[in-house]
Amino acid sequence: MKKVVLAFSGGLDTSYCAIYLAQELGLEVYTAIVDTGGFSAEELEDIERRAYAMGSKKHTHLNETENFYNSCIRYLVFGNVLKNNVYPLSVSAERVTQALAIANYAKTIGADYVAHGSTGAGNDQVRFDMIFQAIIPEVEIITPIRDKKLSREEEIEYLKKNGVEMDFQKAQYSINKGIWGTSVGGKETLTSHLPLPEEAYPTPLSKQEPERVTLHFKRGELTGVNDQTFEHPVQAIQHLQELAAPFAIGRDIHVGDTIIGIKGRVGFEAAAPMVIIKAHHTLEKHVLTKWQLYWKDQLSVWYGNWLHEGQLLDPTMRDIEAFLESTQQNVTGKVHVLLAPYRLQVEGIESAHDLMSNKFGTYGEMNRAWTSDDVKGFAKIFGNQTKMYHSINSEAAWATE
Amino acid sequence: MKKVVLAFSGGLDTSYCAIYLAQELGLEVYTAIVDTGGFSAEELEDIERRAYAMGSKKHTHLNETENFYNSCIRYLVFGNVLKNNVYPLSVSAERVTQALAIANYAKTIGADYVAHGSTGAGNDQVRFDMIFQAIIPEVEIITPIRDKKLSREEEIEYLKKNGVEMDFQKAQYSINKGIWGTSVGGKETLTSHLPLPEEAYPTPLSKQEPERVTLHFKRGELTGVNDQTFEHPVQAIQHLQELAAPFAIGRDIHVGDTIIGIKGRVGFEAAAPMVIIKAHHTLEKHVLTKWQLYWKDQLSVWYGNWLHEGQLLDPTMRDIEAFLESTQQNVTGKVHVLLAPYRLQVEGIESAHDLMSNKFGTYGEMNRAWTSDDVKGFAKIFGNQTKMYHSINSEAAWATE
Amino acid sequence: MKKVVLAFSGGLDTSYCAIYLAQELGLEVYTAIVDTGGFSAEELEDIERRAYAMGSKKHTHLNETENFYNSCIRYLVFGNVLKNNVYPLSVSAERVTQALAIANYAKTIGADYVAHGSTGAGNDQVRFDMIFQAIIPEVEIITPIRDKKLSREEEIEYLKKNGVEMDFQKAQYSINKGIWGTSVGGKETLTSHLPLPEEAYPTPLSKQEPERVTLHFKRGELTGVNDQTFEHPVQAIQHLQELAAPFAIGRDIHVGDTIIGIKGRVGFEAAAPMVIIKAHHTLEKHVLTKWQLYWKDQLSVWYGNWLHEGQLLDPTMRDIEAFLESTQQNVTGKVHVLLAPYRLQVEGIESAHDLMSNKFGTYGEMNRAWTSDDVKGFAKIFGNQTKMYHSINSEAAWATE
Amino acid sequence: MKKVVLAFSGGLDTSYCAIYLAQELGLEVYTAIVDTGGFSAEELEDIERRAYAMGSKKHTHLNETENFYNSCIRYLVFGNVLKNNVYPLSVSAERVTQALAIANYAKTIGADYVAHGSTGAGNDQVRFDMIFQAIIPEVEIITPIRDKKLSREEEIEYLKKNGVEMDFQKAQYSINKGIWGTSVGGKETLTSHLPLPEEAYPTPLSKQEPERVTLHFKRGELTGVNDQTFEHPVQAIQHLQELAAPFAIGRDIHVGDTIIGIKGRVGFEAAAPMVIIKAHHTLEKHVLTKWQLYWKDQLSVWYGNWLHEGQLLDPTMRDIEAFLESTQQNVTGKVHVLLAPYRLQVEGIESAHDLMSNKFGTYGEMNRAWTSDDVKGFAKIFGNQTKMYHSINSEAAWATE
Repeated sequence: MKKVVLAFSGGLDTSYCAIYLAQELGLEVYTAIVDTGGFSAEELEDIERRAYAMGSKKHTHLNETENFYNSCIRYLVFGNVLKNNVYPLSVSAERVTQALAIANYAKTIGADYVAHGSTGAGNDQVRFDMIFQAIIPEVEIITPIRDKKLSREEEIEYLKKNGVEMDFQKAQYSINKGIWGTSVGGKETLTSHLPLPEEAYPTPLSKQEPERVTLHFKRGELTGVNDQTFEHPVQAIQHLQELAAPFAIGRDIHVGDTIIGIKGRVGFEAAAPMVIIKAHHTLEKHVLTKWQLYWKDQLSVWYGNWLHEGQLLDPTMRDIEAFLESTQQNVTGKVHVLLAPYRLQVEGIESAHDLMSNKFGTYGEMNRAWTSDDVKGFAKIFGNQTKMYHSINSEAAWATE
Repeated sequence: MKKVVLAFSGGLDTSYCAIYLAQELGLEVYTAIVDTGGFSAEELEDIERRAYAMGSKKHTHLNETENFYNSCIRYLVFGNVLKNNVYPLSVSAERVTQALAIANYAKTIGADYVAHGSTGAGNDQVRFDMIFQAIIPEVEIITPIRDKKLSREEEIEYLKKNGVEMDFQKAQYSINKGIWGTSVGGKETLTSHLPLPEEAYPTPLSKQEPERVTLHFKRGELTGVNDQTFEHPVQAIQHLQELAAPFAIGRDIHVGDTIIGIKGRVGFEAAAPMVIIKAHHTLEKHVLTKWQLYWKDQLSVWYGNWLHEGQLLDPTMRDIEAFLESTQQNVTGKVHVLLAPYRLQVEGIESAHDLMSNKFGTYGEMNRAWTSDDVKGFAKIFGNQTKMYHSINSEAAWATE
Repeated sequence: MKKVVLAFSGGLDTSYCAIYLAQELGLEVYTAIVDTGGFSAEELEDIERRAYAMGSKKHTHLNETENFYNSCIRYLVFGNVLKNNVYPLSVSAERVTQALAIANYAKTIGADYVAHGSTGAGNDQVRFDMIFQAIIPEVEIITPIRDKKLSREEEIEYLKKNGVEMDFQKAQYSINKGIWGTSVGGKETLTSHLPLPEEAYPTPLSKQEPERVTLHFKRGELTGVNDQTFEHPVQAIQHLQELAAPFAIGRDIHVGDTIIGIKGRVGFEAAAPMVIIKAHHTLEKHVLTKWQLYWKDQLSVWYGNWLHEGQLLDPTMRDIEAFLESTQQNVTGKVHVLLAPYRLQVEGIESAHDLMSNKFGTYGEMNRAWTSDDVKGFAKIFGNQTKMYHSINSEAAWATE
Repeated sequence: MKKVVLAFSGGLDTSYCAIYLAQELGLEVYTAIVDTGGFSAEELEDIERRAYAMGSKKHTHLNETENFYNSCIRYLVFGNVLKNNVYPLSVSAERVTQALAIANYAKTIGADYVAHGSTGAGNDQVRFDMIFQAIIPEVEIITPIRDKKLSREEEIEYLKKNGVEMDFQKAQYSINKGIWGTSVGGKETLTSHLPLPEEAYPTPLSKQEPERVTLHFKRGELTGVNDQTFEHPVQAIQHLQELAAPFAIGRDIHVGDTIIGIKGRVGFEAAAPMVIIKAHHTLEKHVLTKWQLYWKDQLSVWYGNWLHEGQLLDPTMRDIEAFLESTQQNVTGKVHVLLAPYRLQVEGIESAHDLMSNKFGTYGEMNRAWTSDDVKGFAKIFGNQTKMYHSINSEAAWATE
């Protein structure tokens, strides 16, 4: 009997797929749920129960949160990546990690097929397809939902016919939760002009009184929060999330280009990611040189876009990661942040690598390391080419008249 | 008698300069104040009074607000320029405009010298020097404060000796106000770790209840606010500022690289600029293509940095402006923004150029313009090179073992 | 009867298409040949004769050479575009122009269908498809060769059966000629390690004695050669081609990424394009500022790649063209070039806009416009940040030990 | 007695400096010559003899050729760096390495001063000053030639007065030789329009008959030439130079921006560097992905410029080096090059990492890994946004009319 690995979430689409793959295609179905920090223990148990109810031969829970951090989030922090200056790429990055985990699992068990439940309308199908074809090119990809274009009702009907009596109520918003943020789509996000209402966001505002928090970074990674140190940044992120989320920080709507060329709009909440990125970026402004900051910007925008488009396996990404890694050597220090309802404010930093050291003088005050004559000379030479340009070209203009 | 034009603000430094230029150097002093939207009528009168009290032969008020908009702010909006992702370049852009106005005035009256009151410690001296040497290379630059390195007390002493009995009390913070924002420096901004206290910001929070506002853009420029249309964007900005400033929106601390290589930190408040840039950027995300957005980002970061460094006259800036201008052709529409204490939220847009048009399908739903087979083919080809890369190089790895 | 416009070259594939469209699909076939400077009058007549022999209802010759220059070559010169630093994009640029001309012709005559003879293996199919779907989205695209995957022999067989007795001998190399260069593919170019033999290049080396030629540029465009001035740059290019081609200048092999992700290799000869680009670039080095040169490089590489991928209609291309146009304001002057067998050497330039003007001093000799103290000050400030970086971080390194 | 380290070349300027530092300033003079591959044993002996004749307390020969390769040339090859698309940065890169070696030597012997013989007119003074101030900030820099602005005649007079009877005849061209190329300045290079005459180039054309050579690269570095393997790339470069130089390959004139803002023009010959860069670049086109090639280009242009401006110690350079290093992982293989008088031709490559592998299909022929329907789908989706852009905006245009 041939084996298929199915990326299984327990929702209607992947439930349909599980039964379809077993019943119609006669395959041995190995379901797998990839956890990137968005599920509770109960949710995972429930998914497992559903998997077996749908006839899974074997259900596996792949805990990929640390891998997700190590291979993606780490560089998104190094690069201060906010797609279109807004979105921490919560879902985009996660999906690629999930596809990789599924592909590796399929390789491990020697699967003949791999299946995902994506429709033909979104980004995820492209991400899954591309990662699968790069990592397990010999394994055939099956996508029943995309191929059969069934309606919700037809899927439910089919499940019923196969004896599944589960409740698949349609939520008003489609929610996707992971350690790097929660996306919220539907209704208003399908328009260009409406914001999401307060109640659409899963985490309600529950703290009113502003709090101060201190983030500790070591070589660009979050290692501590206030006076707690953590073994792995994942734990630091989770702890910070608990502190910041009740302030409803990091909510926004992202408008962006999908892989397939149309514009898409999606709401999200991402308290810890936003606090971390803003704090990290401020620390960098103190410890990196002007051109390090410049080039990080130029490369990170592209890196984030390319990751969003599912191209994590392009070796260019490794090259940019090597660049980013190199920039983080001195990104070590503390950052003080104010958390308040719906907003955060970075208040200041402390670092042994701070280039604002007053050893060489304080901006706006007279300095010990150079004279005003030095600056006069500097201004003369620094403006030299522009001066010559205008002089020569105003003469050239006269000459042609 | 030889003529000198002095950039005059009425403060201690330029008052010292006025007397020094007349008394010690025996020059005919033409004072000029360049207004970029930061002075009230009373303040301007007061400055004029001081100018004549310091022995100005002729005092001139150069109203450059619209010029400032036309030659600078316009492109900062087109480029969504926030230096280091934070600072709308309030002072940097303004100073360059002021230097240009002074240089042109000096040319007009046939001045032999031009003077500015900058110290040897900051960015402004470089901006003034460079603009002057490019526009009026034959006019000699005099900078008494920079050259003589006098203390505050010595300057006051000198003024007293010359019969000036004005009150030059030192403010706790140094404030610089213009239409594109107000900077606040001193005390905490000289450290790396302290935020500015509430009272350091000139405009106190005075509105608590959130308000909605609609911005109208035409080819990238703000032409209306709510149901009011304006003749010139300068008026629209000023009107929006009145609506938004009482919310204490657009406050932050900018940490950045000065022209002379050290790091500097400065607080600012810039309600209208921040609302405009965030609204404009969101509109662009709907009407521009992916690569327009990408290249605008790459060029605008550099444009902002180079303007900050006083290099507005480099012809590269004209080239980038031509690029930016070209991108704004369809940046026309309305943007709805929520104003709330200390923050703003862009809620949505409406535009005839909106590429999120559901004419071609809605993201995440099945589309009319292509099939799922099309996307399958796309994913295959789009991932082609990465797939080949991994296949060939895993074989190459085997071969070398 | 429904109308189809067929891009017709007179070769085997498009001959097959003509008959197929008429016979099998029952369409009224309008053949059109788009001339971008690569055909002699005789060749055009021959193509027309073949078209009617294949049952064309109406054959049209679209002379697009000046359009090709105005919409493409002009910017390739402004940008000194050589893909992968080697290839003037001869075919890539041409194909997009041809697709545009065909699309506009189809619109003019109200065609129901448009057809091209590309196979499923190359870049051209993507270029044709994309231009057609953007310009004439309502017109259906037919691609018989791609869809039916016929062998050469099957096509000939089919033609014979339909009474066509033409001679379709397979050339050893596939040649594509236009005003911006001639591509040469086949045999050796299908390997990675073999160069094309001398005889593969259509234009043999026939001049041995080096010649000097002077190119006249006006705002970046070639307007004259030696003492001849031309009405349109197209004529100047053609004249220069006559002078330079006999030296076998501008031959090389381009290795690059195709749109579909695989690597391709193609030989080419492009005497005039190479002479023009090298001459134009040298002139720019004299008249543009450092950052103009820098940004032209960054943008032009991307522009060339995106054009190569058939994306000329992305509005980003218009924005970059606006940038490039702006940079050419002063690119006016003469360039002296030595033509020799297989190579060219730019010898020097003359321009009223030359920034190497010795008005301000000559490089390496003492200058009139600044002192050595100015440069000392400059070096101090210019190296400030790096100096501080090393000082602070060597202390920080000590501190952690 | 205080110690000064003098960067000593044996020429008139540094000879003057040696005597001046000892006689006028009463310092103990430590002369040092930094060899970057440009001196013969005899030349080095002659320089040593001169040093002692000028009163050097101790003369040292610092052999930095391998260091120069390891810290600079290596990355110039990885980045295929040709400044302004022409110049391999021969002198620029070398000078920075020399300044570093002098600074480290000064640190080793605990020098109180460091001296260089640069005039106030060129790039080198800035490079020396900046490297010294970063590496040995506590050591004072002395620059007698720059400060005293002496004429050649005055310097000779002074040396005579101090008993030096050496022959300092002025060469027609100023030549600077190192392993990465030889620069040739003077006479014609001071104009914009004249080329250097044949006899200005130190290495005459002495081979007429074309030769083929095979370069072996391992992870981007030249490890072998034909069937010879070398211990260090420096030896491979030197060997290749012997083969290629007699063809007068790699001659050109570089026009570029000096650090101080004016344009400069300099001739050079650099046979091995040019062969290596062109060969390496071609190999990369076969083994790197599209975006690796793209980003290498963007970063390398800036890297070369910043190195040219003496900023090697900016940590941004380390970050870019990390990027470049990462890209070279698979740049392993052979490159076949034809050497001919005044030119070279890369003929082809062989590599286990070649992405042009025909395993997946050959460009222009039907492929095994995808179908023509896949490409049709690809073209549809790839052109999606541009299609929508034109459709929506042509409607918007109608609507406004």
